[in-house]
Amino acid sequence: MDACGLIVEYNPFHNGHQYHISQARKASQSTCIIAIMSGNFLQRGEPAIIDKFHRAKAALNGGADIVIELPYTFAVQNSDRFATGAIKTLHKFGVTSVCFGSESGSIDPFLYAYKTLKTSNHVFEKILKDNLSGGLSFPDAATAAYGTLGLTEENLDLSKPNNILGFSYVKAIQEYASSITPLTIQRKNNDFHDESIKGSIASATSIRKQMLHSESIDTSVQNAIPPETFKQLQSYKEKTSIWHDFEKYFPFLRYRVLTMSIKELQNIQGVVEGLEFRIQQTANDATTFLDWMRKIKTKRYTWTRIQRIFIHILTNTKKDENYVDCSPSYIRILGMNKQGQQYVNHHKKNIDVPIITSIANMNHSILSIEERATKAYYSVIPAHLQRKMFKQELQPPIII
Amino acid sequence: MDACGLIVEYNPFHNGHQYHISQARKASQSTCIIAIMSGNFLQRGEPAIIDKFHRAKAALNGGADIVIELPYTFAVQNSDRFATGAIKTLHKFGVTSVCFGSESGSIDPFLYAYKTLKTSNHVFEKILKDNLSGGLSFPDAATAAYGTLGLTEENLDLSKPNNILGFSYVKAIQEYASSITPLTIQRKNNDFHDESIKGSIASATSIRKQMLHSESIDTSVQNAIPPETFKQLQSYKEKTSIWHDFEKYFPFLRYRVLTMSIKELQNIQGVVEGLEFRIQQTANDATTFLDWMRKIKTKRYTWTRIQRIFIHILTNTKKDENYVDCSPSYIRILGMNKQGQQYVNHHKKNIDVPIITSIANMNHSILSIEERATKAYYSVIPAHLQRKMFKQELQPPIII
Repeated sequence: MDACGLIVEYNPFHNGHQYHISQARKASQSTCIIAIMSGNFLQRGEPAIIDKFHRAKAALNGGADIVIELPYTFAVQNSDRFATGAIKTLHKFGVTSVCFGSESGSIDPFLYAYKTLKTSNHVFEKILKDNLSGGLSFPDAATAAYGTLGLTEENLDLSKPNNILGFSYVKAIQEYASSITPLTIQRKNNDFHDESIKGSIASATSIRKQMLHSESIDTSVQNAIPPETFKQLQSYKEKTSIWHDFEKYFPFLRYRVLTMSIKELQNIQGVVEGLEFRIQQTANDATTFLDWMRKIKTKRYTWTRIQRIFIHILTNTKKDENYVDCSPSYIRILGMNKQGQQYVNHHKKNIDVPIITSIANMNHSILSIEERATKAYYSVIPAHLQRKMFKQELQPPIII
Repeated sequence: MDACGLIVEYNPFHNGHQYHISQARKASQSTCIIAIMSGNFLQRGEPAIIDKFHRAKAALNGGADIVIELPYTFAVQNSDRFATGAIKTLHKFGVTSVCFGSESGSIDPFLYAYKTLKTSNHVFEKILKDNLSGGLSFPDAATAAYGTLGLTEENLDLSKPNNILGFSYVKAIQEYASSITPLTIQRKNNDFHDESIKGSIASATSIRKQMLHSESIDTSVQNAIPPETFKQLQSYKEKTSIWHDFEKYFPFLRYRVLTMSIKELQNIQGVVEGLEFRIQQTANDATTFLDWMRKIKTKRYTWTRIQRIFIHILTNTKKDENYVDCSPSYIRILGMNKQGQQYVNHHKKNIDVPIITSIANMNHSILSIEERATKAYYSVIPAHLQRKMFKQELQPPIII
C-alpha cells in the first residue's frame, strides 16, 4: 500500500488544493495521500486564518487520507529548512513519492537545477555574494546568480516562490530521502500569490484577502473553495468571533518588543546583525503591523524573513530552541479517514519514531514549543474561549 | 527655607489630599511642600488610573510646591521598602520633616511601636512565625503578634494598612534619616479603603471605583475632588480614550504568562516558592484578571503581593533588576511652582545626586526600568497615541 506525500499549508483549503490531491493520486498511483501541513503558523511567517484542526478537517473532506502536522520548528523557517523538515518527516512515515505543483508540470527542470547547483555551488555562492555586496536584494541577487548558471525561465526560474519551494523539495529528497520519487503536476492557477479571485481556482492569498476585507465569505470565495472549507471557516468564526491575521497580534507584539531588553530580543530565533535595535526603535512609532513592517524592511531582509522573526517573538521562541537540523522525533496525526487508518496500521511497525495523536501523550521539547505557539495563536480570541480551543491539542485525531 | 515631605500616590488627587497638604504646611511650619509620588504603577501593585504627569499637575494645583517621582524600583514594593525608598529620597532632597495622615493624629504611638518592635523584634518574629505555621494569614499572624507586644487599638493597631505605612515611614526615618522630624495629622476620612463616596472627603479607592463603574465623573466624584483634578481626569480620557485599571492589562498579562518558560517566570521580581507554577497553571482557565487573582490567592500571599508580581510581569522586571536596597541615585522632578523652583535653586548645591527633569537627560539602569514601565503602562491605549503620551517622559517638568 503506497503513499504519496504532499507538503501543504491549506490556508485555507481550496479547489486548487483539491485538484492537486486528485492529480497526485493519479500521478503517483498511490492508494494513500498524506498531507503534511504547517500548524497555526506558516512558512511565510504568518498566522493561519483559522487553526490547524479546522484546516485539517477541510483537507480530509477534500480527499487527503491523512493529515500530519509539520512542527513549528520546521514550519516557520526559510524554504530549504521547511522543505527538509517536511521531506524527512514524510520519509519516516514511509511515503514512496512526493508530489508538488509547478508551472511547467515537468520534474526534469528541478532535477537539472539541483545537479547544476550541486556541481557549481561555489560559483553560485560567489556570484550571489558579489551581487549582494553590489547592493542587490537577496531575491534579485539570487535570480541573477541562477541566470548566470543558465537557470532561467526556459528551464526553471528560481525567482518564483513556488519554484523555489519545489526546488527545495527536490533538493531535500536528493540529500536526505533519495528513495522518494519526486513528482510534479501543473498548477491550474498560474501564480499562487495572485491577489484577486478569478473563477473556481484562486490563490489562497486572494481568498484570505477577500475574506478579511469583507469579514464574510462572499460568492466569489464560495466559488473557489469546497463546501467543507466553507463550513469550517464559518464554524471557526462562530466559535472564536474572528479570522486570524497579523494586525490582530500587533498590540501584543508591540507591547512585547517595548518591554524586552535588547539582550532578550537578540536571543529570539532569526534576530541577527543588529536587527534587535531596528525592531525595537521602530516599535515606538509603529501604528499598525503593516506600518511597523514597512519601517523595518530593508533590501537586506525579505518581507517573509522579518515576518518569521515576528512569529518567533510572538511565540517567544529562542535561538537555543532551534531543532530544525534534528531528525523528526515523532509524527503527529491531526486527522485521517479509513484509508489513512489502514495505512497507519499497516506501516506503524516500520516507523521508528512515536506516532502521536495528541500533545498530551508525550513530553518533548519540540512539543512544548508547539503548545506555546498554540497558546500564542489563540491569545487574540476572547479569553473565555481560549482554553476551549486549546483543548483540541489534547484530543484524539479527527476521524472522518 | 524649610521643606516638609509627603509620601503620596494621588490616585487621583482628592480633597483629602488637599487638606493633608494644608495641614502639613501648618504642622511643619514649612514654606515648601514636597510630594514624592509613585509613578504609573503603585505600592499596592496597581496601574494608576491616569498617568503620573496628569496626577502631578493636579497635585501642584492642589498646593504641592514640588512633585518628585518615587522610582518604580521603590514604588512597587512592600510598605517597608516603599517607605525606605521614599524617606531616603526625601532626605537627599533636604526635607526637615515628613508628614503623614493617621487616625489618631498623634506621632507618639508610632514612635512607641517602633521602639517596642526594635527591642522585642526577636519576640515578634518568633510569635509571627508560630502564628504563620499555625495557619494564620500573614496580616492576621502579624496583628496577633503585635497584640502580644501590646500594640493594639489603644495605642497603634498595625493591622490597619494606613497605620502600617505610617509605621514604616517612622521606622525608615529612625533608621536612615534621623534628622527628619516625623509628623502626623489626623485623617478626615476614617478608612482610606472606604468603598463608597461620602461627602467632600472620600477615599481614592471609592473615587476610582465610581469613575470606572460609570466611565464618567459624576457629581458624587466631583464633590470629592478639586476642579483641577476633574480637569486632568477629563483631559486624560479625551487624549487616550481610557482610564487605566488592571482588567485592561489582562490580555497582555495572560498572553505573556502563557508564552513564558517557567524559568523566565522564576526570574521575575517577587516570584518565589513555586508561585511561577501556580501563576502559569491558573492562566489557562482565567477569564478576567479578577478571576485569575482569585484562582491564585492563598492565605500565604496577600492580594497586593500577588498584584505587585503581576506588575513586575507586565513590566518584565527581573530579580536582578532590584535596586530597592540602593541609595537613591537621582532625584526626578515631575513638576513645581515658583516656590518649588526657589527651593531647588537654594538647595541644589547641597544635594549630592543629580536632579533630573527628564529621563532623556541621563542613562541609568533605574531609569531604563522607568522607561519600560511607562511603555508597558501605555500599551493599553490606542497604538497611534502611545508615542505621543510617552514623549511626556522626555519633556521638562511641569511648571505652574
